This record gives sequence, structure tokens and C-alpha cells, in this order.
Amino acid sequence: MEKQSPIRAWQLPDGIDELLPEAAAQVEALRRTLLDCASRWGYRLVTPPMVEFTDSLLVGVGEDLDLLTFKVPDQVTGRMLGFRADMTPQVARMDAHSLHGDQVNRLCYAGSTLHTRSESLAASRSPLQLGAELYGARGLSADIEVVALMLSMLDVAGVKISQTLTLDLGHGDIFKHVLAASGAVEAGIESEVFDALQRKSRPDLERLLAPLPEASRAGLLSLMDMHGDLTVLDRAEAELGSAVPEIRDSLRELRELSSALQARYPDVSLYIDLAELRGYRYHTGVVFAAYTQGLGEALARGGRYDNVGEVYGRSRPATGFATDLKLLAAQLQQENTPQDAIAAPDKEDPALQEAVKKLRSQGETVIVVFDGETDTRCSRELINIDGQWQATTRQVSLVGEGK
Amino acid sequence: MEKQSPIRAWQLPDGIDELLPEAAAQVEALRRTLLDCASRWGYRLVTPPMVEFTDSLLVGVGEDLDLLTFKVPDQVTGRMLGFRADMTPQVARMDAHSLHGDQVNRLCYAGSTLHTRSESLAASRSPLQLGAELYGARGLSADIEVVALMLSMLDVAGVKISQTLTLDLGHGDIFKHVLAASGAVEAGIESEVFDALQRKSRPDLERLLAPLPEASRAGLLSLMDMHGDLTVLDRAEAELGSAVPEIRDSLRELRELSSALQARYPDVSLYIDLAELRGYRYHTGVVFAAYTQGLGEALARGGRYDNVGEVYGRSRPATGFATDLKLLAAQLQQENTPQDAIAAPDKEDPALQEAVKKLRSQGETVIVVFDGETDTRCSRELINIDGQWQATTRQVSLVGEGK
Repeated sequence: MEKQSPIRAWQLPDGIDELLPEAAAQVEALRRTLLDCASRWGYRLVTPPMVEFTDSLLVGVGEDLDLLTFKVPDQVTGRMLGFRADMTPQVARMDAHSLHGDQVNRLCYAGSTLHTRSESLAASRSPLQLGAELYGARGLSADIEVVALMLSMLDVAGVKISQTLTLDLGHGDIFKHVLAASGAVEAGIESEVFDALQRKSRPDLERLLAPLPEASRAGLLSLMDMHGDLTVLDRAEAELGSAVPEIRDSLRELRELSSALQARYPDVSLYIDLAELRGYRYHTGVVFAAYTQGLGEALARGGRYDNVGEVYGRSRPATGFATDLKLLAAQLQQENTPQDAIAAPDKEDPALQEAVKKLRSQGETVIVVFDGETDTRCSRELINIDGQWQATTRQVSLVGEGK
Repeated sequence: MEKQSPIRAWQLPDGIDELLPEAAAQVEALRRTLLDCASRWGYRLVTPPMVEFTDSLLVGVGEDLDLLTFKVPDQVTGRMLGFRADMTPQVARMDAHSLHGDQVNRLCYAGSTLHTRSESLAASRSPLQLGAELYGARGLSADIEVVALMLSMLDVAGVKISQTLTLDLGHGDIFKHVLAASGAVEAGIESEVFDALQRKSRPDLERLLAPLPEASRAGLLSLMDMHGDLTVLDRAEAELGSAVPEIRDSLRELRELSSALQARYPDVSLYIDLAELRGYRYHTGVVFAAYTQGLGEALARGGRYDNVGEVYGRSRPATGFATDLKLLAAQLQQENTPQDAIAAPDKEDPALQEAVKKLRSQGETVIVVFDGETDTRCSRELINIDGQWQATTRQVSLVGEGK
């Protein structure tokens, strides 16, 4: 093997990070807070596998997720394995296949994912994805619930949702219907149009649509400007509603969702964006994303994806959202509470062991300090006073400072 | 793309599993219990990355871990990435490189690992590894601490450690010294001898050693029988101590460790096995494993591995252990406490929303029940009594049963 210099040996790949104690503690606390919140809303934890056969992992999820997925042959079967790049389709498979019955299933999950490349310049290639999914409920009530749960989670996480949060709302069906009415599908430029809209590139879109008749072009070009406050919904109805009447149901859903959210979270800013397609890989109905000031990426995003379970033999209504715990924790600027541990001497003394055990069982942190060591986390120490081991405030440093 | 039958589409690879709600809740509860226990002993959580360059992931860990590691090219750099098959060497790298200074570092971690193949017939290929590691302390006190922490963790996990647990103790140096004295290294059969001992195959060992002089063979063959109660230590001293005096320090360490553990955990059975090499990939000093009746695999295992940090530029004393949370949870046969959730109707009523929010903030699980749905977890329901939303015991099923 090539001899490695120590410096080369510890470099981590771009976009791959490790969490040192302070950050790891923050992420762990956030993980517990969010999973506990989901549990109080009735969402049960499931744990999808790290790898699956690509046959099941990538069926029906689209080319971009396929390209994000690391693949490697399974030595046991010779089939290809994929490392999960997104847990949402996995949870949909678990709902469709592993959890029987037609009941409503509320599920949540948390785990590491891996991407072959960063989705944006500074993005992690290993988001710690946490999400909640609601299966078996077709109505808008389910969409309202998952958006409300997302906002509630951001709230308990410590995001100031009433001051800094913008909630973007869109609808996966509107683009689909406007596209169908445009003739772009017949012209074979469907994926190029999707791509240009994803990149919000008007010049590219105009160039692509140039060969189409004027009336066909108008809808897609107009869609690109359909973003802003709630009046966008009226503008879309007026400008696109008669040419593409199929979008009226979607616009009505967005109106109802907006109204329910405004009643529950009056201080959250709503932003309608009917051309937003980024990050919505497999979504069909209402889509949503929470943004905070100064951060280009969404804190959390989700939407409806009724078709994903179909390939697993059971088509189930589905809606949900996900966040990256590491991204979210980094936004929170939590203060770590300084530890108030107790130092214990390193002695094989049964009475000392008993005292240490008792303190730990009471929730105290007791650190055995070996010969010649110190631990700055200890503000107290166990000392033997008249045959009794007692935790007392540490004297050493105070004496030192007093001199 | 080849058309998949639904049945083929959801099969999971051999040794790869998913956790459905009941199992996932048990594993999550166990994860929190064990990490909280480690925290009370002063062990700080760290999170190593899912993947690293094989250069850093596999340096100094031996061929068997290399073969267990899935490898794939990094599209960003063209270098090889490895998916972690064992987190212990990663944490050693973090101690040696990412955490500066010469202080004692107590670290713990929990996360998924992946293996190219099962280590034993029924073994998972994706253990959920949780462990604790103690760096920078060379003395036996550190080994005593980590074994005691391991037993304490198994205790809080719910393993009946005083009735069913056997603690195997061995020493990585004893084999090394007996091997060195045997002439097997000079004969070029070092790895074959290691392999035969790992498999506990006396015929293979005898065949391998046949060309060596009688006196050289005796030590290694005798080592194979060195297992049993604490008298094994005296037997080893008597039979091997004069031919291989270097093992006397190791035997003394095992005596001290046994005596300290017997004082703290008088009911735990100790079993000495000086020829045990399975599962100790990179260990140098004291090694240990906790076994429970009826389970072939260890519940948890660990030992000293002072040399691992060296390749990262800093040689640090190290000792620690790890367990597989899924394996451990499966042994515990926990009873899930039945959920006592509250059903709430699906209405956009501000007073209802407020009542739901308040109940959830008090720790209650409140599940919104959509039209036509039921949720068997709900033993109570929110109903409007004289304009007030109140949680009351569900009447429906009781009436039904009374008929």
C-alpha cells in the first residue's frame, strides 16, 4: 500500500463532515426534541435500511435522485445495492409493503443519507434527514396537518417562526397541467422545459418554446412570474384559468391551505410560488418549504406524493416533509449549558464506588479522574469527609486564583 | 428499464433489515438510555462520517475489516470512498486528529455500519453500533472503567447481569508473545496460526506446527487449552511463564482486572480465555466480551487498542467497547407500553386547535382522526362539552362490548 502522510490520512471528502462533541450534543438534543414532537402528534418511528437493491430504492423516483445515489454490487447476490440518498421513498415502501391494511399511517424517521455530489455549492453530501409522513389520507386535511407539524417542529426546535420564517407554497399539478396544455410534450421538450423552470432561466425557456404557437407559449412563460403574496392565486386564476381549467382545483387547494395556516400561524409569512420545482422530486399535489432569513436552502420542505407507493403494489395517498438536522442545528446558535460534573478519585474503594453509582443514578455526571489528569468539566469533586464520600465544590482553582 | 414485479421490488438484501414501529421504538429508547448512561460517566457524544476515503478509514485496521468494507469511487475527487464497517477506528481518528491536546478524552457514539457480508450465519450486515472509548489513559484503571461502564450499560438496558451474564476476559499480548517465542513467525506461518486459533481448530494448528521443534510447539498448543475460571491464570503462569516470561505482565493485568470487577459486580461470572482472538481486530492489551445464555454472539465486546491513532500522527492509549443496538434490543423482550392517545376531530376550530396544542405541550399524544378513520391507539377523545373541548374516555367501544 502507498505510504500515506498523516495530513492526507485524515482529510474528509468534500461535503462529508464529522460532529465533534459540542455539535454532536446539539444535533442529538434536536433529534430527540423533534422525534418527541412527532410522537405527540401520533407519528410512529420507523427505521429504513441504509442500503436496498436499486430495483426497489430507485423505482419511480426520477433521474436526479438516481444520480445522487451511490451504487455498489452486492457480493452476496450480485445485484446492485444503492445507499439511501433520500429516506422518503423508503418510508413509502414500508407503508405500502411492510405495514398492512388501509388505515391511516403516521410515520417519522431520522437517519443519515448520502449523495454522490452536493446538490448546491455548500450543501452537505450526507444530510441527517429527519421527517414525518402521513399515508392513506387523500384530503387537504392531511396536507394541513403535515405543514402544521413541520411548523410546530421548527417552533420547538427554537426557530423564531413568527419573526423570521417564510413558508413557500406551490402545487405539483399546476406545472403538469400547464405543460400538458402547451404542446411541449408533443414537441418532445418536456424535460428541457422542466429543467429551465427548475433553474428559473427565462432566456432558456423562451428559446425552447420559440417553435411553439404563441398561445401555447403564453401559459408556461406566465407561470414563471407566478410568485408573490396570496394575490398570485387570483392572478393565476385570471390569466391561466380559462386556458387550463384543470388548475382551478389546485388553486382552490392552495387557497384553503393558506387560509387554514393563517388561522393557526398568523405571524408566519406565506409566499406563493407556482413555478417552484426545485427539490420536489416526486411530488404531485401541494408542495411547501420553510425558509429563514439569510439561508439560501430550505430549513424543511415537503409535499404530497400520491404515486410513490404504486410500484410496491399498493397505491396510497401520501404527504410529508423532511429536514436536515445538521443544517437546522447550525441555524439555531444554541448555547451549550456548561457541564457541572463531579470529579471522583481513581480508587478501588467499595464505599467510593457506591457513592459514585448513587450520584449517577440521580442523574449526576461523575468523571473518574486518573492520576495526574484533570477534567475542566468538573466544578465539584467527591472527597472523603470523616469516612463519608461527599460531593463538594472544587476548592483547588479558587485557592489558586486567590493567591 | 426492466419491468419489476411488486414482490421482487420490495425484497431487502440478506442481512439488511428495516425496523417497523414497535422495534424502532424499542431501539430508540435503548439508544437514549445507553447514551445517557455514557454521558453520566463523562463520555461525550461524537458523530463520525458515514463514509471516508479508504486511505484514512482502513489504515492500520487489518485485512478482515478491509474485506467487510463497501468501496465506491468518489465522483468529486476520483479517490476511493469506504462506508464505515466499524466506527471504533473512526473515533480513534477523531481523538488523534480532530480533538487536540493530550488530555484524557472520553467519547461515545451511535450509528449504522455496513458490512459486505455477514460475519456469522445469522449476523446483520448493518449493525447499529453504539460504543464508548477512553483515550489518553494507559493504566489498567482505564480498562476497569470501560468494562464497568459496559456492564453498567447492560444493566440499565435491562439485561439481568447478575443472573445470566458471562464476562469473557483475554489479552491481546499473550498470543503475540507466545507466537514470537514459537518460531512460527520465522517459519512464515504467522497468519495461518492466527487463523487456526481464531477458528479454535486444534487439528489445523497441530498440522501447521508439525515442522517446528517440540519445545516451540508446546506453547501455542497449550495456549489453545487456556480457558476456564480464574485458575487458568495460574496455570498459564506455571506452564508458559518460564518459557515466555513476557506474558507475566499480561497475566498480572488480568488478575487485577478480575479482582476489581469481582469487587464491583460479584454476581457476574468471569471466564478467562487466553486463546480468544475472534472479533478483536486491532486489540493489543486486555480484551473482553459479555455473553448471555443462549446467544452465540457477544452482547458487547471491546478491549485496548493503543496503536490505532498512530497512523493519524498521534499515538494515543485507547480502550473501549461497542454493542449492536438491534441485537441487544432483540434480547430484551421489552413490553411496549400501550399508547394512551387522545383522538381529536378534524375541524378548523381555533378553540379545538388551542386545546390540542395545550394537551401536546403537556406531553399527551393527540391524533387527529380524519373522516371515516379510526386509530386504535386512542383510548380517549376530545369532545366539545358546553363549548369546552375536553379529553374524555372513549365511549364507543365500551357501549359496543356491553351489548
